Amino acid sequence: MTEIRPAGKGDFDGIWPIMRAVFEEGETYPHSGAISEEAAFDYWIKSPTATYVALDGGRVKGTYYVRPNQPHRGAHVCNAGYMVSPEARNRGVGTAMGRHSLNQARALGFTAMQFNLVVATNLPSIRIWEKLGFRKAGTLPKAFDHKKLGLVDALVMYREL
Amino acid sequence: MTEIRPAGKGDFDGIWPIMRAVFEEGETYPHSGAISEEAAFDYWIKSPTATYVALDGGRVKGTYYVRPNQPHRGAHVCNAGYMVSPEARNRGVGTAMGRHSLNQARALGFTAMQFNLVVATNLPSIRIWEKLGFRKAGTLPKAFDHKKLGLVDALVMYREL
Repeated sequence: MTEIRPAGKGDFDGIWPIMRAVFEEGETYPHSGAISEEAAFDYWIKSPTATYVALDGGRVKGTYYVRPNQPHRGAHVCNAGYMVSPEARNRGVGTAMGRHSLNQARALGFTAMQFNLVVATNLPSIRIWEKLGFRKAGTLPKAFDHKKLGLVDALVMYREL
Repeated sequence: MTEIRPAGKGDFDGIWPIMRAVFEEGETYPHSGAISEEAAFDYWIKSPTATYVALDGGRVKGTYYVRPNQPHRGAHVCNAGYMVSPEARNRGVGTAMGRHSLNQARALGFTAMQFNLVVATNLPSIRIWEKLGFRKAGTLPKAFDHKKLGLVDALVMYREL
C-alpha cells in the first residue's frame, strides 16, 4: 500500500536519489543530472508551497510538489511536478500521487493546475494526466532536448480544479 | 527615432517607473504593483540573459529581456518580456522591440521563443506577436486575474527562430 503524506525534515534523503536518477535519465525533466544537491533542495523542497512523499514499506518511492505557476495575478493556478523512483514504476504510484495532488491543490486554494513542459514522448505520464481530467492546452514544437531522441515536442497540460 | 540597445548600469532608473506602472495597471503582467525595487531589478535585469532599452530623445520608452524559459534540456527556448511606457504606446515601440528581440535571441543561440502568459484581452500585443510570426500554442482558461475584468484566459505563444 502506498501512503502519501507531506514531506518532513528527513525525507530529502530519500527524495534526492530519485531526483538525481530522473534528471540523469534526461527524458522527462529539463534539469541537468549535474544539478547540485542544494539547487535540487531549493527546487523541490524550499521554493514550493508544499512537497509530498509516497511511501511503500517506509521507503520513499515517489514525490511531488505544488507551487504557484506565476506570481500574484496568476498565483491561483498551480504548477506541480512528480517523480517516481525508477524501481517503483508502473505500479500506480504516479496515478495515486496525481489524484492526491488534485485534492491537496484544491485544499491549498488553487483553482487550476498547469504543467508547463510535459515531454510529448512521455506517454505513460500523458495517459495518467488525461485520465485525471487534464487536457492538452498546447504544443511546444521541439521544446525539449531528450537525452536519447534529441529535440522533441512538449505539451502544456491544464485542468481547472 | 527609437534606438534599441543593451541596458547599461544607469538604465534601471528609467526602467523601474515603467515596471511599476505596468504592474500597477494589472492588465498584462501577473506581478503585484507592490513588488519591491530589488525584486523588480532581479526579475528584469539580474536574472535574464540580456536586457535592452528602447530610447527616444535619450529617455527610456520601452524595455525587454530575454532568458532561457527552462533549464538545460529546455534552455534552447527563450522567454522574453516587453514593456512600453504608458505615454509612449501605439507608436511602434513594441513592434520595434519585438523585431529586435528575435534577432538578439537568435544571436544569443536560442532556437525558439515562448511567451508563457499572454493575457487574452491584450489584443494590441497579440496582434504584434502574430505579425512577427508567433502562433497561439495554447489557451489557459481563466489563468489571469485581470485588475478590471477579473479572471480571463491567457495564451501561450511560440515561434521557432
